[in-house]
Amino acid sequence: MPSDWIDLDARMLRGWALPEIAQEADKEVRGRVLVVAGSREIPGAALLAAVAALRAGAGKLVIATAQTVAAQLAFAVPEARVIALPETAQGSFAMQGLALLEGTAQGSDAALIGPGLMDEAGTCEFVGALLPLLAHVPVILDALAMNVAKDHAGFGQPLLLTPHAGEMAHLLGRGKDLVLGDPHAAVTEAARQWHAVVALKGSTTLIATPAGGRWCHDHGRPGLATSGSGDVLAGLVAGLAAQQVPLEQACAWGVVLHALASKRLARAHGPLGYLARELAGEVPLLVKRLQGRRVSPRKQPRE
Amino acid sequence: MPSDWIDLDARMLRGWALPEIAQEADKEVRGRVLVVAGSREIPGAALLAAVAALRAGAGKLVIATAQTVAAQLAFAVPEARVIALPETAQGSFAMQGLALLEGTAQGSDAALIGPGLMDEAGTCEFVGALLPLLAHVPVILDALAMNVAKDHAGFGQPLLLTPHAGEMAHLLGRGKDLVLGDPHAAVTEAARQWHAVVALKGSTTLIATPAGGRWCHDHGRPGLATSGSGDVLAGLVAGLAAQQVPLEQACAWGVVLHALASKRLARAHGPLGYLARELAGEVPLLVKRLQGRRVSPRKQPRE
Amino acid sequence: MPSDWIDLDARMLRGWALPEIAQEADKEVRGRVLVVAGSREIPGAALLAAVAALRAGAGKLVIATAQTVAAQLAFAVPEARVIALPETAQGSFAMQGLALLEGTAQGSDAALIGPGLMDEAGTCEFVGALLPLLAHVPVILDALAMNVAKDHAGFGQPLLLTPHAGEMAHLLGRGKDLVLGDPHAAVTEAARQWHAVVALKGSTTLIATPAGGRWCHDHGRPGLATSGSGDVLAGLVAGLAAQQVPLEQACAWGVVLHALASKRLARAHGPLGYLARELAGEVPLLVKRLQGRRVSPRKQPRE
Amino acid sequence: MPSDWIDLDARMLRGWALPEIAQEADKEVRGRVLVVAGSREIPGAALLAAVAALRAGAGKLVIATAQTVAAQLAFAVPEARVIALPETAQGSFAMQGLALLEGTAQGSDAALIGPGLMDEAGTCEFVGALLPLLAHVPVILDALAMNVAKDHAGFGQPLLLTPHAGEMAHLLGRGKDLVLGDPHAAVTEAARQWHAVVALKGSTTLIATPAGGRWCHDHGRPGLATSGSGDVLAGLVAGLAAQQVPLEQACAWGVVLHALASKRLARAHGPLGYLARELAGEVPLLVKRLQGRRVSPRKQPRE
Repeated sequence: MPSDWIDLDARMLRGWALPEIAQEADKEVRGRVLVVAGSREIPGAALLAAVAALRAGAGKLVIATAQTVAAQLAFAVPEARVIALPETAQGSFAMQGLALLEGTAQGSDAALIGPGLMDEAGTCEFVGALLPLLAHVPVILDALAMNVAKDHAGFGQPLLLTPHAGEMAHLLGRGKDLVLGDPHAAVTEAARQWHAVVALKGSTTLIATPAGGRWCHDHGRPGLATSGSGDVLAGLVAGLAAQQVPLEQACAWGVVLHALASKRLARAHGPLGYLARELAGEVPLLVKRLQGRRVSPRKQPRE
Repeated sequence: MPSDWIDLDARMLRGWALPEIAQEADKEVRGRVLVVAGSREIPGAALLAAVAALRAGAGKLVIATAQTVAAQLAFAVPEARVIALPETAQGSFAMQGLALLEGTAQGSDAALIGPGLMDEAGTCEFVGALLPLLAHVPVILDALAMNVAKDHAGFGQPLLLTPHAGEMAHLLGRGKDLVLGDPHAAVTEAARQWHAVVALKGSTTLIATPAGGRWCHDHGRPGLATSGSGDVLAGLVAGLAAQQVPLEQACAWGVVLHALASKRLARAHGPLGYLARELAGEVPLLVKRLQGRRVSPRKQPRE
Repeated sequence: MPSDWIDLDARMLRGWALPEIAQEADKEVRGRVLVVAGSREIPGAALLAAVAALRAGAGKLVIATAQTVAAQLAFAVPEARVIALPETAQGSFAMQGLALLEGTAQGSDAALIGPGLMDEAGTCEFVGALLPLLAHVPVILDALAMNVAKDHAGFGQPLLLTPHAGEMAHLLGRGKDLVLGDPHAAVTEAARQWHAVVALKGSTTLIATPAGGRWCHDHGRPGLATSGSGDVLAGLVAGLAAQQVPLEQACAWGVVLHALASKRLARAHGPLGYLARELAGEVPLLVKRLQGRRVSPRKQPRE
Repeated sequence: MPSDWIDLDARMLRGWALPEIAQEADKEVRGRVLVVAGSREIPGAALLAAVAALRAGAGKLVIATAQTVAAQLAFAVPEARVIALPETAQGSFAMQGLALLEGTAQGSDAALIGPGLMDEAGTCEFVGALLPLLAHVPVILDALAMNVAKDHAGFGQPLLLTPHAGEMAHLLGRGKDLVLGDPHAAVTEAARQWHAVVALKGSTTLIATPAGGRWCHDHGRPGLATSGSGDVLAGLVAGLAAQQVPLEQACAWGVVLHALASKRLARAHGPLGYLARELAGEVPLLVKRLQGRRVSPRKQPRE
């Protein structure tokens, strides 16, 4: 590992605390998160990401998803408001759905776009038009939604991209072998090129910012290499970002929490075979352990 | 806190016991609760509220909800009868659905109206027409359903309103800052104006009755400031009211049980990140602890 | 209690053992149960009853339910085959659905008809035509399906009716007060009149057979007086009957298991507020405790 | 038992280890599994099989199922991509759905076809046309999908058939009594005839390969003789096969894991009455116990 990459682990996060939440905080303080995710073929990704956002501590949750699956998603995440977006024949969101998101987008404290979307071309068009509605909101782009970067010289808003090596190769227009051969260079280049925080996911995950921040987490576990795992990670990051955590810190915390959650599941059940849906439930306890004082004391304690 | 507000906590409730349930009680004795809740965008609120009503001890449960989500709700709450109400284009209940509620409304021991409804204007019209069907039934109004109060000089039936500060401001037609600046005055005024029990929700919750009853609960927790939390509270109160508990007592117990449930979850998991769906499951044990003798002994004990 | 009624409790059941299941038993030996239950307004009753039948040990499960809810029921009970029956405008099963049940009915070892059905008239017509298809199968009639008895002088097949006092009054065409005033007489009369096993449910449950068998269970608990509780009881009885347990024994065991399950939940959670969906999960352990040797040893033990 | 059949149990598996997974493994390494399962009457079988495949350690999951149930299945297995296949009037998959599977089929590391399908004729036609798309992929055929063997002189690809005695009789065109009278001969003949691995399921399960491999497992339990149990077994085998485990080893491990899972549930709950949906959750821990070192150490351990 190049020496200027900061190693991410639990100890490191203890010195990089999340902002305290006031004892008197309401939902607004804990933040509103918008999750734009889930298509007719991969609707469960929206469920995984949205629950993870709540587990990470977001206060209010709105999900925008494909209308063919919206009602069912709403019962899978009964805490959510679910906006049903019209779909194209190919399964992406139709452009007329944008109007349904205007108010919610502007009132959000963070947005996650991408888990479980389908149809690259249609998704790129939709996401490209959605981003301006989120101009002042930290945005996490995941999965197919990242491809919007290919049409962008660089983003003018706070943005996080979360590719794995194959997706990074596709974004940079080069072979996956080249990315794997020098992942530090690839993630650094991507961060600079798109003026975005970029996390290159894998058993080793690298995070780079356009300003030169560099973190490395090499405690990944094979049990995390399971369907839906990335959706949970994206949701955790979005939930933290909604609480005013800067994107690079939200990403670093998300990556470590995700890995620690998998460590707990591996100990309880075995190294392989736990499910992505089980990860987020471990997170509240992990946050508490990493940061004993997440909630600031009431001014006049009563109880 | 003004000195004439009674502090609500577990100790206080021990001296304000719920009515005993006879060992021989059947479902009728435990009460029938009608939950009118859930729209196509926020159907999960009906699930959260309905389960909370059962957890609080109601004996029979009928839910009336939007027809687009009724079947799915019925499997999320398999104990319920679910009446599917026709919807307007805006997502509120269409007026012709009232006829479907007549028999059930009159046979109910308590009704909760509001969680997860959408479209303020349509909801006001529907709720305004539904209230007369519930003339002799204690009614809890929550969320958008409360706005019916704006058209009322005062209610002629036992009623509870459960606004948070923003909703209270909207109801009283003044700024949220003014409500937060003197919440005691706001809730007192609202109770008097609408001749209703009013609970002003927040990290401190105030309850006032038109007859001058005043209770204050300031043990709220930031973990409760999460999507769906208010739906659970409303359901708990409705479930208690169905058991012949007066509305102000049902409200006081509901607020304390809700907070104690969050305290248990916070201890088990961490201060943030538990989900609203997890709250109600804690309630039966909490009721048992607060009131050891909820069930009166069988006349001739056998077992 | 009249002295010729046998008191039902755990001790009594220990002397009235269920048939042993061979170590080598397959699903056929454990029995096929058909559950005809669930309408568009009360579909969850089918879920509660069907799972209870499996928990009681039935080997194979087929559910016939309203087509508007069939797909969702199938995911709520993923072990089941689910036959979707066409519905009338009033919500009962349309007569043309009978043809879909012919093969399954004849291959069943027990059938439960009734939980969650709606529309008395249509249900009576459908059930009246379904019974001849089940001529040699023990049948449990519950809820609205029992009303078919009103058109019958007496049944020519092994049958169990499970009314509570209100339903018994309706069946006998007299006031509920009269039933409650002398329940022993009512259940005895009903058993004789319809030539069926009859269980009059309540905090005290009485079981009578046409041949004069009489059992009394007065260990009911108010926590059992909750929505969906009767659906679970009916499912437990059907699951036992599918294993070649005679109807009166299946009913007696079902009533005791149901009450013991509620006792366990009451101890764990509190006397009120557990849900009907939680009852059946307690049953396998209870059966094991009541009858240590449910499975006969393998002829040549290996493990 | 003939002396040349190898007894399958936990001890035997300890000497027949699964391949190690590298600490740095990604989802591709853990394998892609395609599950073609679930019809409108038995959709839950797809859920049971798919989750079992993940529990056994497969990395990526695609399910192809009947379009009438696809969206609901996707929420029951939120980790999956779900392809909705058009259906015939009889409930099998329509031939035009094949085109939807081409890409996925060729990218799979293992495929399971059969759980919960309906309509034998239509299913045979569809499966017969699907197999060539999976020419180089190990395939498990279960339930109705096995009947494709009746039209085959022998398969040219790695294949596993999993009949119980009744299905075996149907495949071989002889009486079930003849199969039960000499099951060793039947399974050996079937393996030779179809050039496939064959598992004859029952309280004793026999596995034979065309090359003469022979294993016997006689530790089945009556609690496994329950609806959906076979779907879980099929899913476990497919999940192992996706990890490059040869079909006969995957089958042997699946059979033993399935029985050990039932043993754990029987101890915890009782010998009868646990549900098929509960089996797979036991598997990760069992694999860990059978093979302590499933994951090879990181080259440079860090944590």
